[in-house]
Amino acid sequence: MPIDVQKVLGQQLAEMPFEWRERDIILYALGLGVGVGEVPTSEGVLRYTYEGGLKVIPTYGVVPAFPALTGVMSVPGFDINPMMILHGEQYTEVLCKEIPTRADTVTTARVTGVYDKGKGALVTLEAITKVKGGQDLFKNEFGVFVRGEGGFGGPSGPPPGNDAPSREPDAVREYPTMPHQAILYRLSGDYNPLHIDPQFAAMGGFERPILHGLCTFGNVGRGVIDEYCGGDPTRFSSIKVRFSAPVMPGETIVVQMWKESDTAILCEAKVKERGLSVVKNARVVLR
Amino acid sequence: MPIDVQKVLGQQLAEMPFEWRERDIILYALGLGVGVGEVPTSEGVLRYTYEGGLKVIPTYGVVPAFPALTGVMSVPGFDINPMMILHGEQYTEVLCKEIPTRADTVTTARVTGVYDKGKGALVTLEAITKVKGGQDLFKNEFGVFVRGEGGFGGPSGPPPGNDAPSREPDAVREYPTMPHQAILYRLSGDYNPLHIDPQFAAMGGFERPILHGLCTFGNVGRGVIDEYCGGDPTRFSSIKVRFSAPVMPGETIVVQMWKESDTAILCEAKVKERGLSVVKNARVVLR
Repeated sequence: MPIDVQKVLGQQLAEMPFEWRERDIILYALGLGVGVGEVPTSEGVLRYTYEGGLKVIPTYGVVPAFPALTGVMSVPGFDINPMMILHGEQYTEVLCKEIPTRADTVTTARVTGVYDKGKGALVTLEAITKVKGGQDLFKNEFGVFVRGEGGFGGPSGPPPGNDAPSREPDAVREYPTMPHQAILYRLSGDYNPLHIDPQFAAMGGFERPILHGLCTFGNVGRGVIDEYCGGDPTRFSSIKVRFSAPVMPGETIVVQMWKESDTAILCEAKVKERGLSVVKNARVVLR
Repeated sequence: MPIDVQKVLGQQLAEMPFEWRERDIILYALGLGVGVGEVPTSEGVLRYTYEGGLKVIPTYGVVPAFPALTGVMSVPGFDINPMMILHGEQYTEVLCKEIPTRADTVTTARVTGVYDKGKGALVTLEAITKVKGGQDLFKNEFGVFVRGEGGFGGPSGPPPGNDAPSREPDAVREYPTMPHQAILYRLSGDYNPLHIDPQFAAMGGFERPILHGLCTFGNVGRGVIDEYCGGDPTRFSSIKVRFSAPVMPGETIVVQMWKESDTAILCEAKVKERGLSVVKNARVVLR
């Protein structure tokens, strides 16, 4: 098979530098849909979009590490068709007290697992982002699902966990997106043409360009901060999600939340217009 | 009076470096409202937002020179209250064949006129933007209206010209904006809090933060390119406008056009919701 498990496991990716400034932080928030369907002068919008008191939406922590997801393609022993890759799971943890609104960082990443999921292989990558010569900022774990590469007889890995309770959600938040939301989100670093180019979307088996899973991911984080943290993003510690289906730009993301404890919220997300689940097995940990 | 005409006239501003990349070009287009109320996969949207065949909206030419507008505040002899400044007029000319989607540039600017407009003074600045060590890209002329600084007995300057004919417009294009459009547009370099902060807007005498005049300006250019150039921005040579009233974010900009010749289009813009004129005495020259 084109994934050489023994060769790939433990492989270190090339170090990835990444810089951001206030403008990038604001652009990320707008990319998630902050401001859409909201009063633009409300505290909930200005907190994430105005230099006066600017706060970083903590899921931004995946952005500096994101190049790892494409970088894995150049790992020796990882010989697969890039069109068969899906972003399956994502874990992002904030390692610092408050995320700086500007930083020069470097990310190191390595392959931590290759699992046999039957229909495909799940490859996990761990990435640590630090301020250059300074403090740790983020830990990410990317779960890359490679369609058609399963059945090699390897371990299937741990179950996703974080199942939502059977009761009705304790809280629900809705976040509308714009029909051209993906064109804005991609400026935060994921330029995969699948999200803008109708021909690429068709090749991937989609009727039209799909919204980035990480855009939905950010809105799950937003939901918990809005609902359980009084809008204070510094209380956010980590998020884990599994992507179950794509959102189409223009749809409304419905974040369902179940309070497990004062510091643990189980989540799912679905699309309002189609009732379809798009994020499952999700958990946000607060501090 | 706090503008020392003899001292200010001819003063050179400090040289201003400015770099842009494809991402900035796309962000500018989204800031104008490209994609709002449009099919996101249409040629008219992708042309300005997708790296595959990316075109620069020519009014982007004002962006690298924009710091001149605030730089004028530090010119010796120009001692006025910044809250009294309005962007009154704007001329932007493309000096190159096709605007590059990435460039490292430098802009030089100088004060070219101080006119007595009775209720205020009109100060004009000319700015030339070049590729560092290379070709000329843009010529801009900013008209800065300083409220309360007129009546000093100086020349009143040439009339704005470019009056629209009395007949109905030959063509009309409508460009909707989002209620949080100004939050997006400001990422192209005009961070004046007047466009995001309700308290600053109130100090400036506005009920809520207003849209950037230069956002409307860009949409006038877009109108002519869409209507008379078959969407080909390389046919655009120059634009001159006078700002007559502010647009509120979320309003629809109606661009009215009168064909003067194959290469000259007279324009006005108004707000659909209030019927108010926001741009007058405008002319776009094509090539």
